[in-house]
This record gives sequence, structure tokens and C-alpha cells, in this order.
Amino acid sequence: MPETPNHQKSAAAAAAEEDDLVVNPWQVSAEGGKIDYDKLIDRFGCQRLEQSLVQRVERLTSLPAHVFLRRGVFFAHRDFNLILDAYERGEKFFLYTGRGPSSEALHLGHLVPFMFTKYLQDAFKVPLVIQLTDDEKCMWKNLTVEESKRLARENAKDIIACGFDITRTFIFSDFSYLGGAFYENVVRVEKCVTFNKAVGIFGFTGEDHIGKISFPPIQAVPSFSSSFPHLFSINDNLRCLIPCAIDQDPYFRMTRDVAPRLGYQKPALIESSFFPALQGETGKMSASDPNSAIYVTDSAKDISNKVKKYAFSGGQDSIDNHRKYGANLEVDIPVKYLGFFLEDDSELEHIRMEYGAGRMLTDEVKNCLIEVLTGLVERHRRARAQVTDEMVDAFMAVRPLPHMFD
Amino acid sequence: MPETPNHQKSAAAAAAEEDDLVVNPWQVSAEGGKIDYDKLIDRFGCQRLEQSLVQRVERLTSLPAHVFLRRGVFFAHRDFNLILDAYERGEKFFLYTGRGPSSEALHLGHLVPFMFTKYLQDAFKVPLVIQLTDDEKCMWKNLTVEESKRLARENAKDIIACGFDITRTFIFSDFSYLGGAFYENVVRVEKCVTFNKAVGIFGFTGEDHIGKISFPPIQAVPSFSSSFPHLFSINDNLRCLIPCAIDQDPYFRMTRDVAPRLGYQKPALIESSFFPALQGETGKMSASDPNSAIYVTDSAKDISNKVKKYAFSGGQDSIDNHRKYGANLEVDIPVKYLGFFLEDDSELEHIRMEYGAGRMLTDEVKNCLIEVLTGLVERHRRARAQVTDEMVDAFMAVRPLPHMFD
Repeated sequence: MPETPNHQKSAAAAAAEEDDLVVNPWQVSAEGGKIDYDKLIDRFGCQRLEQSLVQRVERLTSLPAHVFLRRGVFFAHRDFNLILDAYERGEKFFLYTGRGPSSEALHLGHLVPFMFTKYLQDAFKVPLVIQLTDDEKCMWKNLTVEESKRLARENAKDIIACGFDITRTFIFSDFSYLGGAFYENVVRVEKCVTFNKAVGIFGFTGEDHIGKISFPPIQAVPSFSSSFPHLFSINDNLRCLIPCAIDQDPYFRMTRDVAPRLGYQKPALIESSFFPALQGETGKMSASDPNSAIYVTDSAKDISNKVKKYAFSGGQDSIDNHRKYGANLEVDIPVKYLGFFLEDDSELEHIRMEYGAGRMLTDEVKNCLIEVLTGLVERHRRARAQVTDEMVDAFMAVRPLPHMFD
Repeated sequence: MPETPNHQKSAAAAAAEEDDLVVNPWQVSAEGGKIDYDKLIDRFGCQRLEQSLVQRVERLTSLPAHVFLRRGVFFAHRDFNLILDAYERGEKFFLYTGRGPSSEALHLGHLVPFMFTKYLQDAFKVPLVIQLTDDEKCMWKNLTVEESKRLARENAKDIIACGFDITRTFIFSDFSYLGGAFYENVVRVEKCVTFNKAVGIFGFTGEDHIGKISFPPIQAVPSFSSSFPHLFSINDNLRCLIPCAIDQDPYFRMTRDVAPRLGYQKPALIESSFFPALQGETGKMSASDPNSAIYVTDSAKDISNKVKKYAFSGGQDSIDNHRKYGANLEVDIPVKYLGFFLEDDSELEHIRMEYGAGRMLTDEVKNCLIEVLTGLVERHRRARAQVTDEMVDAFMAVRPLPHMFD
């Protein structure tokens, strides 16, 4: 079955034609700024993550589902049900996620997939590979090789600070790990993808350099367990589950198309929406505007200032009107952020009710958010301060993980 | 200075337009079958290897020039004079050559660059890196990864049998060596070459798979000494001299265009014409026709049969006519082969004189060639039988070569 069943033409071509919704690894934009995620599911040909699947996860893991799961932050999937079927049969699988290390400091949106991946690792007790695509960022962001490698290590510290279990986690950067069985799989994938096909998926042009065209197979192959001979036996051919933001879907659509031709399992995906900018839901945050996001390096004062000054409010323009009409929760960023990071369901529901009815004011909601974010960022800062260079080396060491399924 | 000074448009485009002379790494063809090497020098923008340069080599090395040099088998170059200038100043350089391991047995044409490279290594006492592009052959010939790797090791044995000095020679296959500093240079090169540029140089189409498009930088980067941190210091930035057949020129035209942008030395080239097929000079030999070439695995009887039966003769159709008009040396394959492998200049000149004047018959010349080739192939067979798997491992070990310039 092709990976884009609802469209004869490629996603990129269709997007270019309709010209309103563009979501790919390098561009996220929509008419009016708001992403229509239903349309995206339809266009990409992935599946909606229904509540019944969330309940099944809870049954299978005997744990409450992660906030990001029960509140629909991760809202789409490909074959996640097959992963659960396999898990239920006692079959093994592994997790794969990654990051393009293009900046020194991570913002909260960057943490979302890692917080969720840590939950999955703990809940299913499975090994995890984390790819740092320093080669990609060197090529796309025009960083030097040295700077990309430095950023990869810096970002690894933030990732490790999310609490991953070193006995189940292998972090690698492409510059440090590419070669051997991994490169053999890259070549196998390359043989299956024509330039025209890559153009259809990624929208490349003739003026793109050949590094960009060469990259997709490098993001594809960590989906295949044989790319990690120090972790998995060549005959394992394990299933892989990839938690990621939905803009990464094109890479794995390509991967899933190719996998059966190589005798490999198609990777399964569990895909998130985008973490909104402080200024409102217009796709992803902009790295060029530090006031569009809360960074893990922001001080308590920074956080307070940014939330008070920039967080787009759905509250009314006067207290009288607010008391009368209530806040518009659909556009209110403080409520959306609380939806990500305020874990207590009843407290969140209380805020939504009171604020939506106008009994709670914007300032009160913003203060609540400031408290939540300050706590989160402070905990992250403390955890990151504990991460030494030796720990980075240890997570990135090419080594077996003998207890990764225990 | 661009690398193709005599043409505004790309070599591939020009070739397609004129439609008579096509020489690139995958295709060698010409109208009427005979390559016009003067036209090729003009089109590629390389330089003719003049006799004065050959004499300079003899002066600098205090050795007679190799037969392939003094008889014009290596007939073109790029900046070979700059290598000699550097050598004269006492500066170091290194040699780089390679082979695409697409077949089990090598034929005599395959040996030509290695025999010549061995002479250069001995004459200049310099280190040598030999690239086995098993990844390329896996992609272009649709071999499996495993088969390509096996052929690389088999071919390495034939290469080692040519007599390379293990204290100065590093042999590597892309599947075994790619990664680290080598891959960093691949990414640096990729960033400098757009798809359109690659199309101009190599003639790719949209239906080519992206592995083909990704490959040229992998053949480019052994030109840079920093790709071999176990051999050279990162700051050495040594000059590189590449002996190869002229069909490889497009790779190194690209490399020379890119090198200055990366702060690297442009590699110099010394380029050979093609070893002719037994059936006559129509470009390169065909792997699909075993009777078009003498293989290093051929028995004395095979060699005798092939030369007698298939070697195109410039002799006349009757003994009377032959005595009257003499042989046409321009098309005679036995004389051409003797020009490669009969080392004694006076003996060769004698044959040319007598045969050209009709005093010597085709059979006599063919018998002479059979004797020369049988000796050559027998020596090669004996040498190859001595090459163990352990020796292949030793040549391919990633190791320093402390005495490589001694």
C-alpha cells in the first residue's frame, strides 16, 4: 500500500497547488496561520490517534497515559496499533527519535518529543536510539562541521537532562556514528529513491545542493534495527516506533515505502502537533525571534516577562467585557501552554471553566502558567547542570545495552 | 579559474549536443569507435603531457620514465607540473587512485593504472591511498552490499599483487572506511555542488536514484589529505596526485572546482587513454564479452587462443599483399598491446619497422605478444597467490604509516 493513499499526486505537489497548507521538515505554514491538522492527516495519509488507542496504551502499560497522549498533543499515527499488537504478543520493539542540532539552547517545543519519548521508554521498557543530525544542520543551516558537532553535544546534554535511562539509550550524531552497517543501509535506501521521487516528497529543486538530496536516507535508516549491530542482532529485524512532530512525516513516508523492498519492518509513527509560539498559533516557533518562545535557559524573570508581555491572550479587552463574554480559549496561549505542562487534569479543567466564563482574569492564568513554566525550566536547569561531558560520552559510546529490554 | 576553460557549457551538455564523443565514468563512445584524444583534452580543459615533462620526471627521479609515460599511455594531466615543482622544492605530496570493484577478475586494462601508480610510488617515495568504491558498484551495478564488499576484497588482492609497498600504502573500501573525518569532507563537498551542477558534470537525470547523485563527493574526498587523519596531520593540507584513466576526469574536475572553497589543495591528475579491446580500438573493453579482453585469470592457452582468434590485425588479407603493403600499425591490436607491455624500446621499434614494412607477418607479432602477455599474467598469478586474507587486512587496517615519506 502506498504511504499517501488519499492522493494520487505527491504531498509536496498537492501542497504547492493548494498553496495554503505547507508542512515539511523545513517549512510549516498555513493560510491564516492556523494549521488544519485534520487536513494534514488526510493529506499525509496517516491515521488519527483515537481515544480508544490511548485507553489501550493505559491497559497494556498499567499506567495513566501521558498528558501529551490523553490531551491529543500526539494526535496522529502510522501503525501504532501494530506496535501495540506486537507488544501484547510479547514481541520486542525499539524507539527512535532525534533532533537537528541547529541552536545552542532548546525551547519548550523542542522538549515535547523528548518528554514524551521518555514516558514511552519507561512505560514499555524498550531501548531507544536518538539521532543528532549534525550533518543535516551543517548542510541546511550552513554551519561549519565543527560548530554542528559542538551543538550536537550541547543538545545531547539537554536531552540527557530529560531523564533517559542510560542502560536503554544510545545517543549518536551522524558525524560521529555514520559508517559501517549504518552506511550500508543508507546505500540500500538510496538505491530505492529516484531524484524525481525525492522531489515529490521533499520539494527539492535543481538549485538545492546534493547534500540536501543525500540526507533523507540518513534520517531513514535508524528505523532499521540492523543499523545498530552493537544493539541488535542482524536477524532481529525489530519493529521501530518513532515519536516525532508531524513535520517529520515525509522522511518516514519515504522510509515506509522503501522498507518492504529491503526486507525490513516499516517503522510506526506517533506524531505531535506543533508547540505554538507565544504570539499565537501560527505554526512553529521562530529561532530568529527569542521572544517567540520560552527557552530552557530563560531565567524566572525572563519567563515572567515573556509570558506577561508576549503570550497571546484570549481574554477580552476590558474587565467588564471579560466578565461578560469570558476568554476565547481557542486562541489563548496561556491556556494552550497549560494544556501541555499543567499535569493536574482537574486544575486545568477548573481554569478552562473559570477563565472561559470570565470569572478568572488573564493575569491570574498567566501567573499560573509562569509558576508552571518556572518550575519546569528550573527542574530542567538543575538536571542539565548534572550532565557532564563524561555522561555525554557514555550515552554516545558505541556499546551493547545488555539490559535494554529488562 | 573554472576547470573547463574551453567551453561555456558543461562537458556533458556539449557532448550530448555534438553526439559523437561521450566520455564519462559510465560511458565511453565515439563516432566510428575511435576516441579523439586531442578533442577530449580540449573539451575537458586538461593539458597534454608533453615530452619535456616526461624528461623532467626522469631528471627529478633519476630513473627512466615508465613505459606508459614515455609512450604516451598517460597522455594528459592537470597541474602535474605543479606537483613536480613542489617535489623539487622538497615538499611532500601523496598519490590517490582507485577501483570500482564490479567484477571478480581484472583484465589487463584494469592493471594499467596500478602498474603506473606503483612506478610513481617507487620513483617519488610517497604514500598512496587506494579507494575501492564498493558503495558505487553496489549502486550502479545493482550488486548487493555483501557482494560488493566481497569483490572489493578480491580486487584488493590483485592490486596488492602489483607490488605496492605496505609501509606506504593504505587501501580502503568505502563501506569499510566511510565515516569520521572522511564523511565530514563528503558533507563539505556536497554543500558546494548543486543538483544542476552535478547534472552538468555527470549527466544525471531525475530518474537516477539519489545514491548516484550522492556518490561523486565520495570519490572526491580522498583527494584531501585531511580525509586520512591516521596518515596526515589536519594542518598538512598536502598536494595530491591522481593517476587514472581519463574517463574519471569529471569527478576530479568537480573536486578541483570545490577544493579552493574548502581551503584545500586542488588535486593534480595524470590521465591515461583507454586500453583497447582485442577486437580493436573502440573505447573500453566490455565486461559482458570475456573474449574482448585478456584477464589476469586467463591460462596460457586462453591467452594464446584469444590473441590468435580475436586480436584485430592490421596485416593484409594475403601474404602477397602483406609483403607488398605492410601492416597498418594504426589499427593493429597486437602492436598496440606490445606498446603497453613490451618494455624493450628497441625490440618494439624493430617489430614496428619490420611489421609495418611487411617483412614480419601477423602470426609472428601475435606470437611475440602471446609470450609477453603469458609472462605478465603468469607473474601476476604467482604474486596474487601469495596474497593472503591477512595481507588484505594489513593493507586495509586504519593505521599510521610512520615511514611513508622515507
